This record gives sequence, C-alpha cells and structure tokens, in this order.
Amino acid sequence: MSITAFAPATVANFGPGFDVLGIAIDGAGDTVTVKQGEHPGIHITAIHGDDGRLPTDPAKNTASIAARETLKAAGVEMSLEIEIHKGLPLCSGLGSSAASAAAAAFATNQLIGSPLRKPDLIGPCIEAEAAVSGRHADNVAPALLGGLVLVRSIDPPDLIRLPIPDGLTIVVVTPEHEIPTSQARSVLPAEVPMQTMVSSTAQIASLVSACYSSDLSLLSRCLTDEVVTPARIGLIPGGEAALGAALGAGALGASISGAGPSLFALCRSERSARSAAQAMQEAIAQAGPNSTVRISPANCAGVRRVKR
Amino acid sequence: MSITAFAPATVANFGPGFDVLGIAIDGAGDTVTVKQGEHPGIHITAIHGDDGRLPTDPAKNTASIAARETLKAAGVEMSLEIEIHKGLPLCSGLGSSAASAAAAAFATNQLIGSPLRKPDLIGPCIEAEAAVSGRHADNVAPALLGGLVLVRSIDPPDLIRLPIPDGLTIVVVTPEHEIPTSQARSVLPAEVPMQTMVSSTAQIASLVSACYSSDLSLLSRCLTDEVVTPARIGLIPGGEAALGAALGAGALGASISGAGPSLFALCRSERSARSAAQAMQEAIAQAGPNSTVRISPANCAGVRRVKR
Repeated sequence: MSITAFAPATVANFGPGFDVLGIAIDGAGDTVTVKQGEHPGIHITAIHGDDGRLPTDPAKNTASIAARETLKAAGVEMSLEIEIHKGLPLCSGLGSSAASAAAAAFATNQLIGSPLRKPDLIGPCIEAEAAVSGRHADNVAPALLGGLVLVRSIDPPDLIRLPIPDGLTIVVVTPEHEIPTSQARSVLPAEVPMQTMVSSTAQIASLVSACYSSDLSLLSRCLTDEVVTPARIGLIPGGEAALGAALGAGALGASISGAGPSLFALCRSERSARSAAQAMQEAIAQAGPNSTVRISPANCAGVRRVKR
Repeated sequence: MSITAFAPATVANFGPGFDVLGIAIDGAGDTVTVKQGEHPGIHITAIHGDDGRLPTDPAKNTASIAARETLKAAGVEMSLEIEIHKGLPLCSGLGSSAASAAAAAFATNQLIGSPLRKPDLIGPCIEAEAAVSGRHADNVAPALLGGLVLVRSIDPPDLIRLPIPDGLTIVVVTPEHEIPTSQARSVLPAEVPMQTMVSSTAQIASLVSACYSSDLSLLSRCLTDEVVTPARIGLIPGGEAALGAALGAGALGASISGAGPSLFALCRSERSARSAAQAMQEAIAQAGPNSTVRISPANCAGVRRVKR
C-alpha cells in the first residue's frame, strides 16, 4: 500500500506576523508518496521537479525528516520509501520545504493507520523545517491546517486558526531571482527599538481583530511591518516598487512572502487581484526579472490525501 | 450651567499590550465639573482628594489641558472654571491622570453642545496625558470608551474596542507604595531582542483571538509579557510573589497595571477574584505594604455625565 498526500504553498511572515502568522494558498503545492520500504530505514527513492538540487540523504530532506519524526511521535518502527513531486520552486518564499514536510508527515501517519491527529503532526514538521530553514512554524502550520494560522508557541506547539474575511484574495508574485537564506537572515536586526516592538504588537493585534470582524479597511491599515520588510525588500529586484504598485492598483496591503523573493498582496476580489498582479509584475520586470503570478482565495484546505 | 462627568479607573499595559491595550474598571474614578468662567482663560477652582499634590496651574493639569484641547478641536473660544474630585490615588497605576482628562474633555464637550463625538475626544486626552505621563493612549482610550480598547495608532488616533469574554472579572490590588514615574521608565530596555518581539506579537495576537472567541484557556496562556513586567516587578514590594499568588489562587493571569505599583489579575468569576485578591494582598503584606483591593467586571462604561 502507498499513500500520496498534497500540501499547499504558504505565505509566511504574513504582514506584521514575522515568524507567527502564515496562510495557505490554493493551487500550487508539493506531492509526496510514502510506502512501506523493502530495506530497513527511510529512503528517498525519487525527487521530481527540483532539477536535482534537493538532498536525497534522508537525514537532510524535510520530507524524510518529517516522516521519521511522525513515526517516532506515533511510537512506530517501520521502513519507508518516499517519492517527492515538487510543485513549488525552491527558495522562493512559498514554503516549499514546509509543503514537502507536511505532505510526508500526513502520508506517513495515514500509512500507519492515522494514530495521530492533524495538529499532532506540527511537531514532526517543525523538526523537519528546523533542519533546513530555522525553527519556525508559520509555513508548516498553514500547510497542515489550511487557512490563516497564528503560531502562539512552538514549544509546545499552540496554533490558532483565524477567520478570514469573505472575498479576500491573495496574489503571490515570484520573481526569477534567488536570495540565499543566509543573506535573508543576515539583514535582519538582532534587536529592535522598544517603540518598534510596541508598534508591531499594535499592528498584529489589529490584524487579528480585522479578521474576526471582517473589517477590510482595518486590515488594510495594519498590514504593515516596520522591521522585516524594510530590511529585506532591497534584496528583491523591483521589490519596493512592486509593493507600491500593488497598493496603487487597489490592493489592501502588500509585503514579502516568507523570506522572499516572492511578494504577496491582499485584495478585496479576484478582479482587484488581477490588477494588482499585473502592476506588481510590471514593476519587477522594470528591474529585470521575469516573474510568475499565483492568485488564490485566502481560505483553502491544508494537507490532504490525493490519488497518485 | 455646569456639567459634571465621571471617568473610570483603567488598567493599561494590559498583559502583552504595553502601551497599546487598556481596560476600564467599574467603581472608582475621577469626577470633573466644568462651567463657563467669569474671567478669560481656563481656571482650576478646586481639586479635592489629592492632598494638595496636583498642580492647579491650568497648563500643567491634565483636566485643564484636556478641556483646552477639546475647545480647540471644536473651534470654540470660551472661559472655563474646572473643579476636580479625585477618586483615584495618584501615581498608582490606575490611570488617574487619564480619568481626569477624560472627564474634563467629556464635560467640556457637553458644555459647548456636544459638537464632538466621544472618539474625537481621544486627541485632546492624548495631549493632556502626554504633558504628564508620556504619549500613550492605553489609559485615556478605555477611560473614554469603556471596555477593553486596542490602540492601533495615536497619530492619528485609531482605536478598536475588543469584545470581552463573559464572566471575566478583574482584580486590582494597589500597594501603599509609590514608584516615581522616572524610575518606572528608566528600568525599561531601549531595545529588545528580535526573538522577544516575535514572542510578544504572538502573545498579543493570541490575546485578541481569545477575546473574540471567548476562549479563557487561551487568554490564560497568552497573558504574559517578557519585557515590561520582568523589568518593573522588582520595583513593587511583594510584586513577584503577588503575581504568583494570584495564579496559585486560580487567576487566569496577572500582571502590572500601568506603571505600577498596582497589580491586576483576570479571573473567571467574582468568587475566583476574591480568592486571588486575598492571596495577592497577603503576598504584598509579607513584603511590608498594606494594599487596597478593587474587584470589577471587565466590561464597563467609559466616561459619562453624572449629577453633581
């Protein structure tokens, strides 16, 4: 028997929610197939769609680490063979490593009879994510649960699924430009002024209120981030101009997706999203790179079983 | 004609909401009477209940500054006489200066025919507060509007009234001990580590979610503050022990009210609140000071007109 699961792309570092807020987006994602192996241990039998760039060493790939940790959490010993179909580009700020981890954890759990609930898979996925892109859960949490997820704590995991205002549509624009993770991290400040912390808490608190009260005007006012976006936007060719262009085209707000280079914008409708996407692509093209656009309703399911 | 208004005590720096979250409490407050004056300008004719400690210079008292700014905001020139009855102790962390400002602004606006709405009075009250205790609105906002108020921005003012879980009861314990404002400020760090900012945003975002979803268990988990409470609690005799005692007695959470020395605890019921209050008083008494207890439902009206 084999189990195949699909996990969606995610936008982490959602506005003022650096490391604590992420949202799943429809359409793109990674697909992982897991079956009992013929040889002891966990093996990656194939990775498709990564141009040979991802490690097949099971100790270094997020899918196999998540599978191993899921077995451990369930108290099951089993040999596994894992096959990965990457639907997401690597290092693009779309939660590619998290999607592989979530799909592998989910498929593994189903393969052994689903002893764990979906939220229990967050721990194994955090371990996998920590091995490749740092100890944070704002990609793996929405990849697992879907929707907009607030990470109150990762040790122990404490996740809150927030309501999403009706009609909200997400644009994600991914420039063909890579930012090494080390560079994206190195530009972040080690400390922030007290006043900046106060302002950040005010904005994220207002964002949560806007979600519960479906207040798009408030959402628009508080989708700002004084710390991470200003530090990183210069790493993205045309990034600053693209964020401005999104707002100019009527988006409620725009910011960097994950560690970039993808940018996202929130819009009131799909029509508004198309306008914002075009404006953002043009701004990025002026700086050089081509880019890919994804438009998605904000609310979508998380990881799920699919036919192979 | 004279107008008399009452404004309630407030608990600012509410948990992880330093400078951005405050709540009004029932019972105690300041009362201010305003009438047209016989001599040009704004005059404070009497202050009761302050033991002669508050300035009667209208340029230095929050009531007269708020009245002056209210007239300015309404575009009205008028001479005023102001009489203040302090129901709140000074420098106790209960928003005493904010209560006087809110009552004076409200009474002044009514005296001139209510050209301004209640939320329009926040600007005049912020100006008054800035003159005596710094530019923040987490006391004046709930003193004006009542309930639990999130301050997204003060320039321009942007306030959000949050829902409050049913049954929530607030204990405030005020030790007989003064902390000079300069000392309370000097112990605050100028900068905080990035990771602390991330954790603070996660806690306040969760607190807002807990309010909307009436989830007292979540509220209890996120009523923490890693920055301000640890820095200031040592200034309050028995403070650390009192916070622990509140939790030991079943409170959902406990922290410093405003800049202290008052401490507050949130409880599920009035009965639980009485237990927490007793435990907190005993802990403080062991360190020396006597203390006063106030127990109040969390939801209460803001400033209102009263009979003199």
